[in-house]
Amino acid sequence: MDFSAVYHKTSEQMSYALNENELIINLKTGFDVKQVFIVHGDPFDAGILGGSEKWHGTREEIVYKKRLSHHMWWTTTLVPPYKRCKYYFELHTEDEVWYCFEDGFLTKEQMDMPGRILQYFIVPWMNSADINRTPEWVNDTVWYQIFPDRFANGTPDKNASDVLPWQTGPVTNREKYGGNLEGIRQKLPYLRELGVTGIYLNPVMEADSNHKYNTTDYMKIDPSFGDNADMRRVVEEAHKSGIRVMVDAVFNHSGTAFAPWKDVLEKGKDSPFADWFMINDWSALRERRDTRDGRFYSFAFADWMPKLNTNNEEVIDYFCGVCERWIREFSIDAIRFDVGNEVSHLFLKRMRKRLKKIKPDIYLLGEIWHDASQWLAGDEYDSVMNYPLMSGIHDFFLDKSMDKKEFEYMVNRCYTMYMQQCNNVLFNLLDSHDTQRLMSRFHDLDIFYQQLAILFTLPGSPCIYYGTEIAMEGGFDPDCRRCMPWDEIGSRENQERIAQMRRLIRMRQTYPALKSPYFHFPNRYENRRCVEYIKLDREGGKTEIVLNCSREGVHVGESGEVLFARRYKEGILEKNGTLVRRIS
Amino acid sequence: MDFSAVYHKTSEQMSYALNENELIINLKTGFDVKQVFIVHGDPFDAGILGGSEKWHGTREEIVYKKRLSHHMWWTTTLVPPYKRCKYYFELHTEDEVWYCFEDGFLTKEQMDMPGRILQYFIVPWMNSADINRTPEWVNDTVWYQIFPDRFANGTPDKNASDVLPWQTGPVTNREKYGGNLEGIRQKLPYLRELGVTGIYLNPVMEADSNHKYNTTDYMKIDPSFGDNADMRRVVEEAHKSGIRVMVDAVFNHSGTAFAPWKDVLEKGKDSPFADWFMINDWSALRERRDTRDGRFYSFAFADWMPKLNTNNEEVIDYFCGVCERWIREFSIDAIRFDVGNEVSHLFLKRMRKRLKKIKPDIYLLGEIWHDASQWLAGDEYDSVMNYPLMSGIHDFFLDKSMDKKEFEYMVNRCYTMYMQQCNNVLFNLLDSHDTQRLMSRFHDLDIFYQQLAILFTLPGSPCIYYGTEIAMEGGFDPDCRRCMPWDEIGSRENQERIAQMRRLIRMRQTYPALKSPYFHFPNRYENRRCVEYIKLDREGGKTEIVLNCSREGVHVGESGEVLFARRYKEGILEKNGTLVRRIS
Repeated sequence: MDFSAVYHKTSEQMSYALNENELIINLKTGFDVKQVFIVHGDPFDAGILGGSEKWHGTREEIVYKKRLSHHMWWTTTLVPPYKRCKYYFELHTEDEVWYCFEDGFLTKEQMDMPGRILQYFIVPWMNSADINRTPEWVNDTVWYQIFPDRFANGTPDKNASDVLPWQTGPVTNREKYGGNLEGIRQKLPYLRELGVTGIYLNPVMEADSNHKYNTTDYMKIDPSFGDNADMRRVVEEAHKSGIRVMVDAVFNHSGTAFAPWKDVLEKGKDSPFADWFMINDWSALRERRDTRDGRFYSFAFADWMPKLNTNNEEVIDYFCGVCERWIREFSIDAIRFDVGNEVSHLFLKRMRKRLKKIKPDIYLLGEIWHDASQWLAGDEYDSVMNYPLMSGIHDFFLDKSMDKKEFEYMVNRCYTMYMQQCNNVLFNLLDSHDTQRLMSRFHDLDIFYQQLAILFTLPGSPCIYYGTEIAMEGGFDPDCRRCMPWDEIGSRENQERIAQMRRLIRMRQTYPALKSPYFHFPNRYENRRCVEYIKLDREGGKTEIVLNCSREGVHVGESGEVLFARRYKEGILEKNGTLVRRIS
Repeated sequence: MDFSAVYHKTSEQMSYALNENELIINLKTGFDVKQVFIVHGDPFDAGILGGSEKWHGTREEIVYKKRLSHHMWWTTTLVPPYKRCKYYFELHTEDEVWYCFEDGFLTKEQMDMPGRILQYFIVPWMNSADINRTPEWVNDTVWYQIFPDRFANGTPDKNASDVLPWQTGPVTNREKYGGNLEGIRQKLPYLRELGVTGIYLNPVMEADSNHKYNTTDYMKIDPSFGDNADMRRVVEEAHKSGIRVMVDAVFNHSGTAFAPWKDVLEKGKDSPFADWFMINDWSALRERRDTRDGRFYSFAFADWMPKLNTNNEEVIDYFCGVCERWIREFSIDAIRFDVGNEVSHLFLKRMRKRLKKIKPDIYLLGEIWHDASQWLAGDEYDSVMNYPLMSGIHDFFLDKSMDKKEFEYMVNRCYTMYMQQCNNVLFNLLDSHDTQRLMSRFHDLDIFYQQLAILFTLPGSPCIYYGTEIAMEGGFDPDCRRCMPWDEIGSRENQERIAQMRRLIRMRQTYPALKSPYFHFPNRYENRRCVEYIKLDREGGKTEIVLNCSREGVHVGESGEVLFARRYKEGILEKNGTLVRRIS
């Protein structure tokens, strides 16, 4: 047997309580393992740990599995009657049987040797306080991300003198175009019409930049965008339209105009805020150059974004208070934590506790681009921005040497990293204010819709970036933040694209299979880059998604009810074609 | 390359801050990987995440490695200047080179493909608040575990009528032999003489059993053992003798005489303590039979040990208060949490925070018999009872089919499960009140000392169970709790054994190499069951440990300074022989 491929542990996503009753157990093995049994039972069935009693469990086959690039992933759900579980695995290859315990592999003879101390896997107790609970509404939500300065200007007659004329070409980080909260409010009917049920706003608190990621005042809406009353109004009207609102919280660093930083500049070590930042050399704080000299720590070496010390109890308390006020004053539904991996775990644990207390279904989302398991144990974020999925999708479309199996492995990897509770509310996206725009990656509308079809059919919660409904172009940050071309929105081309987007969104919201966590990859079409996967709902409803990423047409037949299609006719899915159809 | 064998993630023990500056990175590969490089640097060296900039790190070879049963374990320490780190691995087999990223393996060509989004491993920030810190004194401590009713009776003239005459034969769970705190106090000089620097007391709070694991009153010393003043006196005098004191905390369940349980029995659902336990059927609480019917949850189905609901904030607060009072009233140094895996994580996180606040170097030890990673992230226990090591040592001596390499793999497994901070303060033991006594496993004094030599030379903190210094016998619980034979302590045999134990303890305390975390297994002697490992201190001092577990003598030479030996003469280590010697 390929021993080195076998992996299991009783923590993280490998073994966890899905709820008060169900225990999910996952196991990785090599492809040589053909059959797996789990032998499980109550740890105390035979007496107390340490004694000489012989314990016997119930033997049950594990039938669900997924393929990863180098492993088979086996998964099962148990319902331990007393909240406790003790288990081991029985692994069958073509010609061997091994018993897998926490400390390794035993033969039957070794397992039965009198006196041997068997190191079973143990789930000691499924404590209700430790269960990872995430807000249910998020899985039903379709998000729309808005970069406020560039989305819509609702008060063009009141433009300040530094506001440039709205234009739809390339942009940089230096311009201000006058988008504001009133603009967003006026576009709520447009968004509702599109089918959006959540908006994610990039920062709206006061800051002296166009992106507002260098906050000056965490409790004051930036005057360029309006005032606190405008914000309340946006949220209130959004709620009336069935749209939830997520704001961006920049707590990893502040701007240099943030009062505590100014106090530190003024008073140095004697400032009561001296420990709110991470300062190493007090003599050189005012100098203007990047922070590679380490005089203080800042975000990405930018001296105008000094890092906040989220290890400090006062800082923790201050920002928990800020979020509580946002919830109370603005009635927001969700918070996205910028640079959510650099703030301390202590900070996030405290934050979650305080916010869930006043608003139990608030959605706490971390901006984390890599494996975020350590933030998703149930006591910090509800979930994270699913950049690994975005990157995986992109790389598959980019690298034509990759086989459809590699797409399958990639998707399976993304959905075996975290507990199901987090997967259900993953924030899936294909682009954002921090990346190149989706349309600008391949400049191909067919590939663009193929990727969107994936976005709208995988587990989690899909988000489109403003303008994606009309396939807006834009390069890497800052060019991905162009102005929304409202003047051209009525063009036939744009209206067609909006109709496509509306169809995708409505499809997602109509068929529970698309939102569900259940999927598999039959990959039945004989073409190395024609991806096929099936989504299932709890009632047995099945939807098939087919993406022809090859250069030739593929015969996929005409059965089923077509929910969304491009480059599909007479049973043939052409090059770069997309097909989503209900097959039962 | 054996891809399925490669394992790394940026959490748990695989990648963590050892302190504010040092980052430890571990990687598992198959044995086919011959050389590993890590390419690392600051994540923002080339600009901000998501942009198109090309990042280049520093390439460095990883030279330290250990063998596990099916993997090679590679380990290195980095010092990221800005507390952040981004990295990938370069893996070399005999004829291949692969680049290992978070999402998988790339060829050089794939890695360099323009537009590919590389998913590096990221350590976003080494926050001081999140660093796992454990008390330094524990690594220097040699523990002695005392089961109070059976250790020493300091007031035989005051015996209550239910106290049986002290006797040294087999025992059950029903007898009371009159051991007490005054007895322990009187034996402190004996313990100091032995070299012990910590005592771990099984429960001493009021309970109506001889083992006291069913607490009646958490704030009152059991009258059989003395009173609170006696407890203060024991701790005070122990401290004067350089001995720290650890008490046993039974918070997973209480006894049925615990006032809240009595209140629940009386008032049912209306009791203010109704939610302090885990009750499913209020009508059948008073019935006396095991709890397999699920009428309430209890420890190991014992109806006289109802489970406490450690998910309840009041319960959490109550027991945090209990521990705070123990610290304040008795000046204890450490707490061992009984059934430490069944209480909620919420409870333990709160407990740690409150106790470390009033006594920063208190040692919080969990009774956990299996992989305890999820309790050892730095915000719950400092460490756990090292039962996996106990079991592994035992099984190697039991199962003669096992090769010395399997011993090496087992030890390496035990010391690669947790972060080094936890390894340094692991509570290593070979037996306890919950297991068969060490001497009763093989009834062989040579094998007994071989195992003790291992105990005293591995990283962590060794503990001997009372009576082990005279190789006391005792079967599984409850027979492992026999009375200490003080009348026979002066026999020549016992004095010789005590001298051996004193030598082992003094050896441990004299040579820093024995306590250190650094070891490797040259296994140079040509005999399949002659184990050899080397411990190293920070100054280059080396100690060699050789255990001949085979049936023949092995020539091991006569070099070095012998620190401890049995069955060793003229350069030959006989069957079941033990040799500990300083070799530089």
